[in-house]
Amino acid sequence: MIWFNSDYSEGAHPEVLRKLTETNMEQTPGYGEDVYCMQAAGLIQKACGRNDVDIQFLVGGTQTNTTVIAAALRPFQGVITAASGHINNHESGAIEATGHKVIALPGTDGKLTAAQIADYVDWQANDESVEHIVQPKMVYISHPTELGTLYSKEELTKISKVCREREVWLYLDGARLGYGLASRENDLTLPDLAQLCDVFYIGGTKVGALFGEAVVIVAEELKKDFRYNMKQRGGRLAKGRLLGVQFAALFEDDLYFKISKHAAGLAEQIKEAFERMGLHRFIDSPTNQQFVVLPDSICKKLREKFEYEYWQRMDETHSAVRFCTSWATKEEHVQALIEELERLLAEEERN
Amino acid sequence: MIWFNSDYSEGAHPEVLRKLTETNMEQTPGYGEDVYCMQAAGLIQKACGRNDVDIQFLVGGTQTNTTVIAAALRPFQGVITAASGHINNHESGAIEATGHKVIALPGTDGKLTAAQIADYVDWQANDESVEHIVQPKMVYISHPTELGTLYSKEELTKISKVCREREVWLYLDGARLGYGLASRENDLTLPDLAQLCDVFYIGGTKVGALFGEAVVIVAEELKKDFRYNMKQRGGRLAKGRLLGVQFAALFEDDLYFKISKHAAGLAEQIKEAFERMGLHRFIDSPTNQQFVVLPDSICKKLREKFEYEYWQRMDETHSAVRFCTSWATKEEHVQALIEELERLLAEEERN
Amino acid sequence: MIWFNSDYSEGAHPEVLRKLTETNMEQTPGYGEDVYCMQAAGLIQKACGRNDVDIQFLVGGTQTNTTVIAAALRPFQGVITAASGHINNHESGAIEATGHKVIALPGTDGKLTAAQIADYVDWQANDESVEHIVQPKMVYISHPTELGTLYSKEELTKISKVCREREVWLYLDGARLGYGLASRENDLTLPDLAQLCDVFYIGGTKVGALFGEAVVIVAEELKKDFRYNMKQRGGRLAKGRLLGVQFAALFEDDLYFKISKHAAGLAEQIKEAFERMGLHRFIDSPTNQQFVVLPDSICKKLREKFEYEYWQRMDETHSAVRFCTSWATKEEHVQALIEELERLLAEEERN
Amino acid sequence: MIWFNSDYSEGAHPEVLRKLTETNMEQTPGYGEDVYCMQAAGLIQKACGRNDVDIQFLVGGTQTNTTVIAAALRPFQGVITAASGHINNHESGAIEATGHKVIALPGTDGKLTAAQIADYVDWQANDESVEHIVQPKMVYISHPTELGTLYSKEELTKISKVCREREVWLYLDGARLGYGLASRENDLTLPDLAQLCDVFYIGGTKVGALFGEAVVIVAEELKKDFRYNMKQRGGRLAKGRLLGVQFAALFEDDLYFKISKHAAGLAEQIKEAFERMGLHRFIDSPTNQQFVVLPDSICKKLREKFEYEYWQRMDETHSAVRFCTSWATKEEHVQALIEELERLLAEEERN
Repeated sequence: MIWFNSDYSEGAHPEVLRKLTETNMEQTPGYGEDVYCMQAAGLIQKACGRNDVDIQFLVGGTQTNTTVIAAALRPFQGVITAASGHINNHESGAIEATGHKVIALPGTDGKLTAAQIADYVDWQANDESVEHIVQPKMVYISHPTELGTLYSKEELTKISKVCREREVWLYLDGARLGYGLASRENDLTLPDLAQLCDVFYIGGTKVGALFGEAVVIVAEELKKDFRYNMKQRGGRLAKGRLLGVQFAALFEDDLYFKISKHAAGLAEQIKEAFERMGLHRFIDSPTNQQFVVLPDSICKKLREKFEYEYWQRMDETHSAVRFCTSWATKEEHVQALIEELERLLAEEERN
Repeated sequence: MIWFNSDYSEGAHPEVLRKLTETNMEQTPGYGEDVYCMQAAGLIQKACGRNDVDIQFLVGGTQTNTTVIAAALRPFQGVITAASGHINNHESGAIEATGHKVIALPGTDGKLTAAQIADYVDWQANDESVEHIVQPKMVYISHPTELGTLYSKEELTKISKVCREREVWLYLDGARLGYGLASRENDLTLPDLAQLCDVFYIGGTKVGALFGEAVVIVAEELKKDFRYNMKQRGGRLAKGRLLGVQFAALFEDDLYFKISKHAAGLAEQIKEAFERMGLHRFIDSPTNQQFVVLPDSICKKLREKFEYEYWQRMDETHSAVRFCTSWATKEEHVQALIEELERLLAEEERN
Repeated sequence: MIWFNSDYSEGAHPEVLRKLTETNMEQTPGYGEDVYCMQAAGLIQKACGRNDVDIQFLVGGTQTNTTVIAAALRPFQGVITAASGHINNHESGAIEATGHKVIALPGTDGKLTAAQIADYVDWQANDESVEHIVQPKMVYISHPTELGTLYSKEELTKISKVCREREVWLYLDGARLGYGLASRENDLTLPDLAQLCDVFYIGGTKVGALFGEAVVIVAEELKKDFRYNMKQRGGRLAKGRLLGVQFAALFEDDLYFKISKHAAGLAEQIKEAFERMGLHRFIDSPTNQQFVVLPDSICKKLREKFEYEYWQRMDETHSAVRFCTSWATKEEHVQALIEELERLLAEEERN
Repeated sequence: MIWFNSDYSEGAHPEVLRKLTETNMEQTPGYGEDVYCMQAAGLIQKACGRNDVDIQFLVGGTQTNTTVIAAALRPFQGVITAASGHINNHESGAIEATGHKVIALPGTDGKLTAAQIADYVDWQANDESVEHIVQPKMVYISHPTELGTLYSKEELTKISKVCREREVWLYLDGARLGYGLASRENDLTLPDLAQLCDVFYIGGTKVGALFGEAVVIVAEELKKDFRYNMKQRGGRLAKGRLLGVQFAALFEDDLYFKISKHAAGLAEQIKEAFERMGLHRFIDSPTNQQFVVLPDSICKKLREKFEYEYWQRMDETHSAVRFCTSWATKEEHVQALIEELERLLAEEERN
């Protein structure tokens, strides 16, 4: 069985594991107060082009979203997201568990627009019952989105402007940031994010690490006492240096970007193959998640050899499914997938 | 100025106030452990046709919704509501502040359907990532709804069935319950609610009391330790007997139903007048809230003498507005409103 | 049966009720946006000697404590209280339900000292694991305390200084504030509180109102968006003017202070009688709550005619009990209580 | 510099790391649904002598305590702990952040007694204001405690009995469980815990793993929907198999117990050396944490070569400090520590 269902099927990139092994018996202080965390923070600051941003390391995505959002909001404030946003659907109500409403705005491609945000914030601010309506104080976006789509620099700039004019925090979830930045269609950089966002995170779990996310805090007000929030939400790893070691490995010699490029290239191969085969795409994703509509009959046969993510039913005989590539995906597996799909489609046609 | 903007513009029905005055200097135990609360509970049980339901008194609607919902759910569980539901829009995130997601389903008339509920609950239960999605464990509906519409007995029976089959609590917000039950189009009774719901409340604030809501707890499991929740949510009134006294007054000699009928009758007069004048209705409400679309020019002039609730913009020159009647509305005020509207419309036509 | 068990056994002072009745059928806007709330706020500002404090009205004490504390703190911050504080013992975990630790410091007379506060705050701030320990950011005191004791102006001034030096909010719970200010031993005034505290409340429920507490917000930072918090915690009364009407009645012609003096005078009579009879006092309270140690045999017989609050067991044959006076207590009832106690003690002695 | 300040200074036991490396490039499903988690769960069930207990893996201690406690309690319920308990002091209010009061009972050795628990639970249940007081519904203990002390089988059996009679959950925090079980003074076994507790966890972070805690759920009612809670509290690791792999390594061939014994043996050497040197012990700990009182002058000099944990000031010239051993502690380091201390004490004496 070959797995394309997610981008977290394997362990860590060998270089990351090597460094973990190499440092294993060293003694360091706990809770992220060690030299490796410092080193990793420095490398990330450099990659962001600013040394005035705070870098904090957390273990996983839900934990990071929860900690960042709960740290930023007062009790009656909420966070705006696209309805398809991860915090709205796949975190078991983690944000609400900290007391905050997730305000879901509709959309078709997983993205929010600056206009949508402006309209909503202005509507609430001007309503007669303003104090009876949750105050939108943060905008949550992800890059790439849940659907693999990307914000352009122009779009993100507009969103940032709209947020700053209204004193609303802009938070970008970068669980798959590497795969976004590595896309041919992407025109955003880490320094752009460090200018346009108030806080964002660079995902490690899906991009080469065993686990770990690096939070980049840009806004001064959000830096204060952030570690209290980390501890309270269960996010300060006792052996914090494990996160530092991993991110140091990822940000030395641009490993993070190189392995992301690998995944992006293979995703493009899959995308082009789907197009060549005349398959209907569910959404046009330029990143490591490829969504395609397949006949259920093909789906079933494909699953004898390949694991994919079932996405949703399209009609009585077709489903949308997702294939992910990652830093760990092997080119020969991609070839095998394409060949098998071609074979099955040809077989289908013959019948 | 005559006020039609809400159903809580005045104090209490004179009979309620009389009873408060009459008992004012009596000494009773606090926190609802007095004879008046017992008496009122008995009267409400009788009106519900069951003496095995628990009756608890709270001060206001948001407090009641918060207390009931937080008492019923485990942390990862959420409450389904129509997107227009009060808990979703007008309680400043009170439900989320207790840690629970408000799951908003779309709709046009303020109501949920049994099919919608079944589909959502079944979808979550069968999703591969079931534990990553908030578990829907309660359905919140209101009768009448925020838009003044009503559930038929058939509709509520279906919803109740769908909920019980799936072990989902059914909670009915009766902030305006009197005005719903008094509508000519209503075919539900208090005993019906006490059969079909797991918990509901009978609104006093909008129907004759100074303040106060009577929670009727039907499901055995929801009765246990409910008073702890009341206290924790700030809902146990020190002078609890004030609630008992008021509800005893309202449920003696059917006062609650009589004064609700008064409001319903006047709302019908308004509705018929709107139809006669050829005004476009925003929604077809058979209860004490009447929504109508008016030219902005009329709105403006009307407000010189009458207060109404601005609802929403319809197009560049028209708005939807709401007029409420209540137990306190005077027939001559309704007449004055109708005449003024007729006058303004005629004037408009002349120009 | 004559009740001395609490200070909320009756309804409202007749003058308050008169004003509620008089205004009953007036139409006003809801949620505290009416002229009566404005009028009451003005009167309270005047009594506080500052017109730059915000006045907000809430229904009850637990709701007020919850709303004020949750509004002021970030998630990892806690509130310091004397271990005997109301928020630590008798609010069913309402503060914790908003996510905050109640940090209880020991004491014998219901009071905190400036030194205790300074020591605790400094200890936390200087601990190596500072971010693993809840950050104390508010001090909660009550005046009078749960045990009827009072802070002197000197003590409160020191506490205020310690708090301001450390950027810790000082919040004073005034559920029985009238009875504190009216005590012969009190040397604090409302203007003092409005100088020394960051926020406090003037209790109405126990001092003449049907219900209601008036929050006085002094610190600029705590004023912002306070009404959102009120709504979210279920504390914005739909017919908000009921609170305005009552507090206007209480603060016109110093009614609040006059009726408090009445209670204070009767409490002194009880206190002196206890001393005359040679009874052991449980705590030396100069306010409307009098605590005394009685033989269980006397307790039992006394309860045939008088209700008191059982406080705690002292030894195998003695208990501490509490007697409260209030604005509503009748002098002849106090006389009857004293005579009955004298009679029972004499009877006891004979046996 | 040699570190004795904590038991989480190094990475993982080499055998654990070996297994992580060996399985690194395997593809498995995420979120703990893999064969390694199944295997580890089976091994732990076997070690507990019951296959009807549920095993769930989480990343760290605060996360585990938060998830277990929040999953078990209704909103108005609290958890009893010794005042020195970790949840009361060193988790930044993580438990309160889920809405629950931490009820701290006093004690001197980090332990609770059955009598203390019974008294508190019975007091609350019988108080007149029972619903105004947080309901104690869980008891939290740790083994070893924060102070390194142990419960005897007799003590734990009594606590368990008291809890079951009162329907109070018993939860044991086993962050250092291995070091407790390996102590010469311990008479408890994993099967004992699986009989006497309702839920407990076996700590991996401090006992050989990179990170990870294994929760053993005994009580049927606590098993239901536990994974929702894990996800909501940020505790479901995407690459969940990392936890399975590590615990499988630890519970194959009793590695967990062997490496714990190593730490216990070295701790005894330290303890005996302290006694030999005539040092005053701060507390009599039979486990891997050794607390001793040292002159500040010695402390200062010692720190030139050895890191320890400062515990608290004893008097003007003495402090209590803590030395930890772990699976990773080297015997020669212990010898070096002892020799250095002897040298410093001798030097001190000469002066």
